[in-house]
Amino acid sequence: MRILFIGDVVGSPGREMVKTYLPKLQAKYRTHITIVNGENAAAGKGITAKIYRSLLEAGANAITLGNHTWDNKEIFEFIDDAKYLVRPANFPEETPGQGYIILNINGIEVGIINLQGRTFLPPIDCPFKKADLLINEIQKRTNIIFVDFHAEATSEKQAMGWYLDGRVSAVVGTHTHVQTADDRILPNGTAYITDAGMTGPYDGILGIEKDAVLKRFLTNLPVRFEVTSGRVQLCGVVIDVDPKTGRSLKIERILINEDHPFFE
Amino acid sequence: MRILFIGDVVGSPGREMVKTYLPKLQAKYRTHITIVNGENAAAGKGITAKIYRSLLEAGANAITLGNHTWDNKEIFEFIDDAKYLVRPANFPEETPGQGYIILNINGIEVGIINLQGRTFLPPIDCPFKKADLLINEIQKRTNIIFVDFHAEATSEKQAMGWYLDGRVSAVVGTHTHVQTADDRILPNGTAYITDAGMTGPYDGILGIEKDAVLKRFLTNLPVRFEVTSGRVQLCGVVIDVDPKTGRSLKIERILINEDHPFFE
Amino acid sequence: MRILFIGDVVGSPGREMVKTYLPKLQAKYRTHITIVNGENAAAGKGITAKIYRSLLEAGANAITLGNHTWDNKEIFEFIDDAKYLVRPANFPEETPGQGYIILNINGIEVGIINLQGRTFLPPIDCPFKKADLLINEIQKRTNIIFVDFHAEATSEKQAMGWYLDGRVSAVVGTHTHVQTADDRILPNGTAYITDAGMTGPYDGILGIEKDAVLKRFLTNLPVRFEVTSGRVQLCGVVIDVDPKTGRSLKIERILINEDHPFFE
Amino acid sequence: MRILFIGDVVGSPGREMVKTYLPKLQAKYRTHITIVNGENAAAGKGITAKIYRSLLEAGANAITLGNHTWDNKEIFEFIDDAKYLVRPANFPEETPGQGYIILNINGIEVGIINLQGRTFLPPIDCPFKKADLLINEIQKRTNIIFVDFHAEATSEKQAMGWYLDGRVSAVVGTHTHVQTADDRILPNGTAYITDAGMTGPYDGILGIEKDAVLKRFLTNLPVRFEVTSGRVQLCGVVIDVDPKTGRSLKIERILINEDHPFFE
Ligand SMILES: [Fe+2]
Ligand SMILES: [Fe+2]
Ligand SMILES: [Fe+2]
Ligand SMILES: [Fe+2]
Ligand SMILES: [Fe+2]
Ligand SMILES: [Fe+2]
Ligand SMILES: [Fe+2]
Ligand SMILES: [Fe+2]
Repeated sequence: MRILFIGDVVGSPGREMVKTYLPKLQAKYRTHITIVNGENAAAGKGITAKIYRSLLEAGANAITLGNHTWDNKEIFEFIDDAKYLVRPANFPEETPGQGYIILNINGIEVGIINLQGRTFLPPIDCPFKKADLLINEIQKRTNIIFVDFHAEATSEKQAMGWYLDGRVSAVVGTHTHVQTADDRILPNGTAYITDAGMTGPYDGILGIEKDAVLKRFLTNLPVRFEVTSGRVQLCGVVIDVDPKTGRSLKIERILINEDHPFFE
Repeated sequence: MRILFIGDVVGSPGREMVKTYLPKLQAKYRTHITIVNGENAAAGKGITAKIYRSLLEAGANAITLGNHTWDNKEIFEFIDDAKYLVRPANFPEETPGQGYIILNINGIEVGIINLQGRTFLPPIDCPFKKADLLINEIQKRTNIIFVDFHAEATSEKQAMGWYLDGRVSAVVGTHTHVQTADDRILPNGTAYITDAGMTGPYDGILGIEKDAVLKRFLTNLPVRFEVTSGRVQLCGVVIDVDPKTGRSLKIERILINEDHPFFE
Repeated sequence: MRILFIGDVVGSPGREMVKTYLPKLQAKYRTHITIVNGENAAAGKGITAKIYRSLLEAGANAITLGNHTWDNKEIFEFIDDAKYLVRPANFPEETPGQGYIILNINGIEVGIINLQGRTFLPPIDCPFKKADLLINEIQKRTNIIFVDFHAEATSEKQAMGWYLDGRVSAVVGTHTHVQTADDRILPNGTAYITDAGMTGPYDGILGIEKDAVLKRFLTNLPVRFEVTSGRVQLCGVVIDVDPKTGRSLKIERILINEDHPFFE
Repeated sequence: MRILFIGDVVGSPGREMVKTYLPKLQAKYRTHITIVNGENAAAGKGITAKIYRSLLEAGANAITLGNHTWDNKEIFEFIDDAKYLVRPANFPEETPGQGYIILNINGIEVGIINLQGRTFLPPIDCPFKKADLLINEIQKRTNIIFVDFHAEATSEKQAMGWYLDGRVSAVVGTHTHVQTADDRILPNGTAYITDAGMTGPYDGILGIEKDAVLKRFLTNLPVRFEVTSGRVQLCGVVIDVDPKTGRSLKIERILINEDHPFFE
C-alpha cells in the first residue's frame, strides 16, 4: 500500500502543480492512494467546492485541512456533503465537517485523520487525546492509518510522532510550508516527517508575495497577503505501508522545483 | 571560502558528535571556517566557559547562540572575554557580549552575525533593522558575511533570507532543531536554509527526553526537561562562498545519524 | 448568603494581610463563607500544605488556585487529601486534585468552581464547556454556585460572565492581580467582576520586586522574581446571594491599602 | 492643570457618550485639557477623518490611538495632517503619524505621549526606551507630560508606571477596555491607573456583540465582530497636576453607566 501525500497546496500556482505532477507522481511511484492538504488552495485561504472537486479530479482521494479551514466562507455550504474532505478532528464538537474518514482502496481500508496542534495556534481540544479516541475507533476496521498533523511547533509534532509510533502508519506534519529533512521510520513502524512542505510559489514567503510580508515584518503596517506568481514548487512524501500490519517500511520526500527538477 | 556550520549542539551527546565528526567533516569538505551554534551545549540550556573552549578545541572558529544564551548563569562571567562567542545582535543594548565578529581566516575576513527572531519569541529589537546596521558596518571590511538567524517562524526566517539576499553570503536558520530541506541559493547569491537542524540525541523531542515532553503536552504538569541518551545525530550545512564577491555558489546539507551514516 | 472572596494572596505579605483582615471583614460584612485564591501564597508560586492549613485557620472555607497550581512541588503530596482546595477544573483529566467542591454552610450548600482561561495561557480543555458540565452536576444539589475564573484576557472573562449569567451566583475573575472597577450584577442575577485583584505587596509589580521586573522588561535578561516587602494591600469582593434562587443581589469591592484604609 | 482622559471610545455608542458627557464632565471637574483614546472610534476598528474631527468638536484636545490605529484604511490619508492625533510612539520608524505632541493650553504646555506594550501584542520597538527618549525631549519645554500606555499585560503597565514615576505627570493604561480600581499617585508624583476602561456599549464584550464573541470562544469558528447596541457607558479619569512641577496631586476615576449614574 503506497501513499502519496502532497503538502499545503497554495492558490492557483499550487493547484496547477497538482494537476501537472499528480499523475506523473502516481505513475512513477505506483501509489495506491493520494492525500492532499488543501487548506490554502483557494487564493491562499481555505477551499471552495469547485477547488475541492478539481483536486479530486486531479487524482486526490482525500483532502485534509488545517487552521485555514474556515477562511473561505463557501466551506460552510459544502463541507457536510464533502465525503472526501477532512478537517482537524480536534476542533470543538459543534464544528461542521468530519475529522477522519475511512476509504476503501481496492478492498483495503485506509483511515485518514487530520489533527491540529495548539502550540502557537488557537486553543482547541487536545490533539493527543483526540488521536487516542479516533485510533481506537478506526482500528476496529483497519491498521492502515494516515495522520496529517497540522501544527506549528517542531516539539509538538515530534511529540505526536513518538506518541503514535506503532499505532498508526504515518504522522506527516503540515502548516509550516517548509519541508523538513527529518523523514524517518520510527522504531515501532510509524513513518514520520515534521513537515511535508508546501505546493505553490517557489519565490514567495510561504507562498505569499514577499514584499508584502517583508513590509509587515519591518513596519507592522497592514498589508494584503496575496499568493505570488513566478516559479513554482511541489512538496510531499511517498510512504510504503505493509498492508497486513499497517507498519510503514519507507518514507521518501518529494521536492519538485527549478533547483530540483522532476525525473519520471 | 568554504564554511561549515553545525546546528544547535544539545548537551553532551551533541558535544560528543562535534568532537567526533568536526575533524572528519572539515577534512571531507576541505572547509576553511567552522561555526557552531552552542545555545544548548550545556545540558540543553546555555553554555559554560569550559564547553565554549572545548568546542573551539574541537575545531570551531566561532560559536553562535540564541534564546537560551543566558540559561546557564556562568555565561555572565566569561561572555565579555569570549572573543569567538556571538549572541543575538538584536538583544537590548545593555546586554553583555557581542552580536557579531569579524574573523581573519588565512588573510580573508569573514563576518559572523547572530540575530534572533521575534515571532513566538520574546519582544526584542527588530532583527531586520539590526541586520541593516551590522551589514553596513561589516561591509566596510568584507563581503563575506554569515548570518545565523535564530528564529521559530518559517515566515520570519524566509523573510530574512529574501531581505538579505545579495547582501550577505548566507542566512542559516537555527532554533527549531529540525533540519529543513529547503537549502538553496537565492537569486542574488545568498545561501539559505530555514533551519540547519540540531546536533545531539536522535530519539528525543528536540533533544529532550521524550516521555517528559509528552507528559507535558498531555497533562500540562511540570516536568524536568533533560537531554536524552541513546542514538545521536549531527546536522549542519556546508556553504561555498566566492571570496571575491561574497556570493555563495553552493549550499549542501549535512545530516549524520543511524539512518544517514557518514561517508568519509 | 454572603460570600467573601479574597484575590490572589501573594507570599507572606499576602498571608499576613489575610490573617489580619479576614476576621475583621467577616465581622464587618457578616459573611457566611470565605473563599481565598491561594495560587501565589507560597513565596509567589504555588502553595504548601502548611500554608493551605494556615489559610483555613485564618478563616477561609475554601482555597482556589490557578496557573501557578503546580509551582511548589509539595502540592503533589497533599492535593488529593486537601478537601477544601480547588484547582482549575478544566486542567487535563489526569491531573490530581479536584475542580469543584460543594460545601455545607449551616445547612446551605454552596458549590465552588475554579476554571482557567486559555487566551495568553497554556492550551487546556475548554473552560466554557467544562463550566456547563459542572454546573449541571452541582445544580442537582444547589443553586448557589461561585466561580473563580482565573484568566488573563478581559474578553474571555467577560465572555464567561455573560455565558454563565443566570446559571451561577458569581463569576469572579482572578490572575491579573489588578482589581477592576466593573463589579456589577448581570441582567440574570450573576455577580461579576473581571478581576478581584491581589493581596500582598502594594509597591511591587503584581507583588514582585519591581526592579527585577523592570530589568526583565528593559533587557530581557534572566532575573529572580521575589515577593517584595514594604506596604501591603488586600483585594476582594463581598457578594450577597439570595439563598433560595442562587441569584446575587449585590457585589461590593474590597480594597485595603494605605490609600484606602479599612474602616470597621 | 486638570486633565480629563476618556478611555477607548468604541463605535457610535461610544461617540454618542462623548458628545453627551464631555461638556458635562469638563464643566463638573473644571478641566483644562481633554484627551480621548479613539482607536476603536470607527465601528470598533480605527478612526476616520470625520470621526477624528467630531471628537475634537465634542471637546477633545488630543486623540490617542493603539493597536487598532491602522484598522480603518482612511487613516493613511489624514494622519500626517492631523495635528492632534497621536499614535503609539514606539511603532517602527517608517510608520506615518506622530508619537507625541505638545499642546499649549492657555500658555501652559502639555506633552502627550502614546506608547504601546509588547506583551501579548505584536513585537515593536521597546516602549520603555522610547519613553526615555521622548521624555528627555519634551522636558526641554514642559514638565507636564501625560502618557497613554496602550498595553495588555498588567505587569507591563505597572512596570511602566514605576519606570516613569517622577518623570511624567500620568501613566494611564488603555486597551483592555475594563477600568481598573488601582488609580493612585505613585510615591514620586505620577498619577497611575492600569486601565481607564472603555466608552461605548455596556452590555457587550469589550464593546462587541456578545453572542459573536461567545461563539468564537466556544467553537473557534469565524464570526463578525460588531459593536453592540443597547445600554452604554463612559470610562475615564480626571487628574490634577501641579503646573509648576508637573507632579500629580490627585487621580479620580470616572465611570458612567446605568449602575453608576452621572451627577452634575
Ligand atoms: Fe498551510
Ligand atoms: Fe496552516
Ligand atoms: Fe536550540
Ligand atoms: Fe533556540
Ligand atoms: Fe496570581
Ligand atoms: Fe495566575
Ligand atoms: Fe481599544
Ligand atoms: Fe487596543
